[in-house]
Amino acid sequence: MKVAKFGGSSVANAEQIKKVAAIIKADNKRKIVVVSAPGKRYADDAKMTDLLIALAEAKVADQPVEAAFNAVMNRYESIANDLELNRDVIAEIEADLKNRLEQTVTGKGRFLDIMKASGEDNNAKLIAAYLSKIGLKATYINPKDAGLLVSDEPGNAQVLPEAYEALAKLAEIDGIVVFPGFFGFSKLGNLVTFPRGGSDITGAILAAAVQAELYENFTDVDSVYAANPFIVEDPVEIKRMTYREMRELSYAGFSVFHDEALIPAFRNDIPVCVKNTNNPKCSGTLILAERERSLNPIIGIASDEGFATIYVRKYLMNREVGFGRHLLQILEDAGISYEHIPSGIDDTSVIIRQTQLSDQLENAIIERIKEELNVDDVHIEHDFAMVMLVGEGMHNTVGVTARASSALAKAGVNIEMINQGSSEVSLVFGIHSKDTKQAVRVLYEEFFGQKQ
Amino acid sequence: MKVAKFGGSSVANAEQIKKVAAIIKADNKRKIVVVSAPGKRYADDAKMTDLLIALAEAKVADQPVEAAFNAVMNRYESIANDLELNRDVIAEIEADLKNRLEQTVTGKGRFLDIMKASGEDNNAKLIAAYLSKIGLKATYINPKDAGLLVSDEPGNAQVLPEAYEALAKLAEIDGIVVFPGFFGFSKLGNLVTFPRGGSDITGAILAAAVQAELYENFTDVDSVYAANPFIVEDPVEIKRMTYREMRELSYAGFSVFHDEALIPAFRNDIPVCVKNTNNPKCSGTLILAERERSLNPIIGIASDEGFATIYVRKYLMNREVGFGRHLLQILEDAGISYEHIPSGIDDTSVIIRQTQLSDQLENAIIERIKEELNVDDVHIEHDFAMVMLVGEGMHNTVGVTARASSALAKAGVNIEMINQGSSEVSLVFGIHSKDTKQAVRVLYEEFFGQKQ
Repeated sequence: MKVAKFGGSSVANAEQIKKVAAIIKADNKRKIVVVSAPGKRYADDAKMTDLLIALAEAKVADQPVEAAFNAVMNRYESIANDLELNRDVIAEIEADLKNRLEQTVTGKGRFLDIMKASGEDNNAKLIAAYLSKIGLKATYINPKDAGLLVSDEPGNAQVLPEAYEALAKLAEIDGIVVFPGFFGFSKLGNLVTFPRGGSDITGAILAAAVQAELYENFTDVDSVYAANPFIVEDPVEIKRMTYREMRELSYAGFSVFHDEALIPAFRNDIPVCVKNTNNPKCSGTLILAERERSLNPIIGIASDEGFATIYVRKYLMNREVGFGRHLLQILEDAGISYEHIPSGIDDTSVIIRQTQLSDQLENAIIERIKEELNVDDVHIEHDFAMVMLVGEGMHNTVGVTARASSALAKAGVNIEMINQGSSEVSLVFGIHSKDTKQAVRVLYEEFFGQKQ
Repeated sequence: MKVAKFGGSSVANAEQIKKVAAIIKADNKRKIVVVSAPGKRYADDAKMTDLLIALAEAKVADQPVEAAFNAVMNRYESIANDLELNRDVIAEIEADLKNRLEQTVTGKGRFLDIMKASGEDNNAKLIAAYLSKIGLKATYINPKDAGLLVSDEPGNAQVLPEAYEALAKLAEIDGIVVFPGFFGFSKLGNLVTFPRGGSDITGAILAAAVQAELYENFTDVDSVYAANPFIVEDPVEIKRMTYREMRELSYAGFSVFHDEALIPAFRNDIPVCVKNTNNPKCSGTLILAERERSLNPIIGIASDEGFATIYVRKYLMNREVGFGRHLLQILEDAGISYEHIPSGIDDTSVIIRQTQLSDQLENAIIERIKEELNVDDVHIEHDFAMVMLVGEGMHNTVGVTARASSALAKAGVNIEMINQGSSEVSLVFGIHSKDTKQAVRVLYEEFFGQKQ
């Protein structure tokens, strides 16, 4: 049995949904289908989720909701008409939407969750109707009935362990199960959405629950690439990678998945395959627990910008037991999480994502550090980037660091920070943001270039 | 005016002391002379400080003290006789020693301080007597009279700011001042010794107080070398280096100075010169606030062994604000200080000096980490070494990391950790202890070898 999840672009309109149907028909192991809300049909389009948020905000602000409501319904109707569906489905969706708008709930967070989740939920109903229409036995299943139990935190659902036992029964359902992604229900019966990448998470949970032989994640790219195609022209496709490698790359902004989404699959050893709805014959990228050793110690290069460094200097810092802990406490009190903390004898740097900062917060932190830690110097520098080399082969290969830093050196890229030692499968360079593109390109050339 | 400090080996016996006298005579700017207690005369010899500790321990344990007392006096007498000094000095020293033994003080720590400090103190009297004998105007000055005020922590004196004003008056004394190193007096009048490297500290304090043009540190090597002569055969001498470079190298075990000793000199911009009592014509190593740029970005390579790594892994560790802080708290509670803390997405390592650990403590820490942090994995690995490249030029030179890691790679040395980013003048590699010698040698060859 396979679980197949289709992302927003894969279900954006009738044309895309027809491709989805063809994919499902092509392999009768594709029994459980997880769908997102309709995504963008073209660059400036609005996603269904955005239309629903606008509707919800209007309701909360006591503004007229008619225009926003119609925008949502028009989208569904457009899809339903192009798929030549019976009017029943649209009537059902309209009634559901009106019902949700009238929900008296405590808190804006929960209402937003209920409204956003309707995108996936109603699209699932629509797609199940289409699959039935073309002769497949297909049933829409609601997460509440299926037992997808999650924690009760609006917008940040965590699946509860007991959910898996209930969800396992999905495997016994005859025909295709069409399951909306992105949300579950708390023990109190509240609808709660997953954080970022929600439908990816739903798919992984279901795949784990039914012990699927494969979790196929259908998106709009042929595979995961060894580097960002917007930076490197025509990067090689990654055919096979491990969970660890995917996770490290996701962190540094690879954005095929959100790094947490695959955890249920990881934990249960379910292979994951990234495929292209628009090119389903392409084998895609297979993500596994382990893979065979390859000649190239590196599987991919990721980069992310927008980091700041808090630099702190104090004579004999390293003799003060508790200094580092106190420094981290100050950041914790300010709600700031850190990425790296290279430390020396008399100084240390704390590297953080600079979106967490504001001028006010920076001043507050600097003041506390000066007052409580009696430092000789503290200042914050902005606009750093992290470039990450990832690969299972790195650990056993003497020389990766040498090749990487040589390549950067030849290109005149100054290395501000190196983090090697915490992870066995990645090596992180901290550089100035302005050098990011060049850094990625020279590293790609070094590890994937023609001379290999 | 220059301040000249002579270490233990430089004042170990009459022959050495005569060299000291010659050095003082050779330059009439050498007005303030700081001396240590007599050091080892040969490999298996006992230092005066050790003889005094034995004497103090016997007294504290209510054992007979005669043998230990005689061992101390014999040493002084031997020096005095060979210098052909008047019996008065020996009588004075003997009376002083007996007086110290009878001191009723609170606490073993203070008594130990009083006994240990007598080594420097009485040696200074002896040397002042000799200088006078050979026709130099020389006065023994006691730190109490001179106003060397320190904090009241036995064995860990910190100089108080107000001391400098009083000590400045030493410059006004006619002739040579002979000043015992290693101790000062608290405001309560207690004798308190400096921590490690005590006489180096005294010299630096006096040099700062009188705004000396130079602080000469006389020892038994010609200069500071670019690498440990026990590892690299015939390493180049460092002619000029900066305070920052000296400090970083001292940390990693260079052991010419203790890294804190020079701080009073650093803070006051007093140049420091390391010279050899046995070869005073050699120019030695000059340590300054800044130096001219040199072709070689690296000034020296240091190494230190005996590190352990506490490795901690937990999914989504980097999303848990406060995880790192909590981990450091656990170590702080156990009284453990850390050196480096490379951190990643799901894991972090904490690198510590393994002398801080015992089997019991390791188990206790691991237990707390498991219980309080709910980690997926925690374990401790031993026998790592740190190899440090130091150089002011490093910051502006793209390519040092590349050259260093290439050299290590070619030698098959696995790099477990890299710390670059906290300090502008050093780059630290974490490797397995067994690779230390080779790592230092190949790095030396790379940065100082013939092909340069």
